[in-house]
Amino acid sequence: MDVNVLLFSDFETLDAFGPVEVLGRIEKCRLRFVSTNGGIIKSSQGVAILTETLENVDFSGILLVPGGQGTRQLINDNLFIEKLSDIALKSQYCLTVCTGSALLAKTNLLNGRKVTSNKRAFEWVKSVNSDVEWISHARWVVDGKFYTSSGVSAGIDMALGFISDRFGIKKAIELAQSIEYIWNSNKEDDLFAK
Amino acid sequence: MDVNVLLFSDFETLDAFGPVEVLGRIEKCRLRFVSTNGGIIKSSQGVAILTETLENVDFSGILLVPGGQGTRQLINDNLFIEKLSDIALKSQYCLTVCTGSALLAKTNLLNGRKVTSNKRAFEWVKSVNSDVEWISHARWVVDGKFYTSSGVSAGIDMALGFISDRFGIKKAIELAQSIEYIWNSNKEDDLFAK
Repeated sequence: MDVNVLLFSDFETLDAFGPVEVLGRIEKCRLRFVSTNGGIIKSSQGVAILTETLENVDFSGILLVPGGQGTRQLINDNLFIEKLSDIALKSQYCLTVCTGSALLAKTNLLNGRKVTSNKRAFEWVKSVNSDVEWISHARWVVDGKFYTSSGVSAGIDMALGFISDRFGIKKAIELAQSIEYIWNSNKEDDLFAK
Repeated sequence: MDVNVLLFSDFETLDAFGPVEVLGRIEKCRLRFVSTNGGIIKSSQGVAILTETLENVDFSGILLVPGGQGTRQLINDNLFIEKLSDIALKSQYCLTVCTGSALLAKTNLLNGRKVTSNKRAFEWVKSVNSDVEWISHARWVVDGKFYTSSGVSAGIDMALGFISDRFGIKKAIELAQSIEYIWNSNKEDDLFAK
């Protein structure tokens, strides 16, 4: 199964690469880094990543959407939101980290769904779409094929939760140990909620 | 102050980008991604990063060396080890994650120093240089200008420890909160040691 990581200017580095570290350890899983126009995409921390264009990419697998400062502009980019809607519909699972859920909320695919996001940007994220059931206290939230996490490092916990749901908790624990990560495995436990 | 991140083929993604997320939040700090020949460098998870060559880079700041599968070959690459020795000598601080400490140990700059590494690869890392005082139980270790951490995600804890040492624990806690990260702040507490 492919994991397609959707990158854009000023995405938050760890939002993407925390889950990438986890998901990249699934056997027979291929990671692809994509962006609307392909080429080099820079994160907020200045990491320059080579990406593929959306064309010719098989989106039937897992879609990962990070958050970051770049989401503030993208939310008003209708062409981007249309493309995101298109690939999210095709994807078997959609995972967002931090304000990545704001982008996905804008597509209306999350309407009526339970969704979370970064607690520091929560009011802004909520304002993007009031038809979403925003969960203010959660490390991450699962609703159908949609996994949405709190800010930045919560994405690592969510990715391990995703592994646990698909392959069993033993596999998730084993994987956390292989990266010497102390997994916050209770998705309802949110130390950063107000 | 510049943070220079030394990348090489098959580095471990989170080894580099965990600390990058933390160090990239220091005010007036510039991150640079460098490699011996510049150009695109791929991590073990297939992330393709654009890097600069070592020439024209000011190495007087912080050097960050990740680990990963790529270290197994590099340890025998004398030219690489010579260049690493040269830039580590110039750097005010040297931070390594996971088996990145094996590379730095090979330069002999860690001889007589307290150093740690990934607990799964510990026997191999120790075999690289027996004149280093290898610490088998530590989340991370500080000895002079050298900060060395355990495997993968321990790099995030070490980077926050570095922030704490330089700018105070309040700053480190604030930064951990901004990325919704539950900081394992006790460097002696190592859940993954045997």
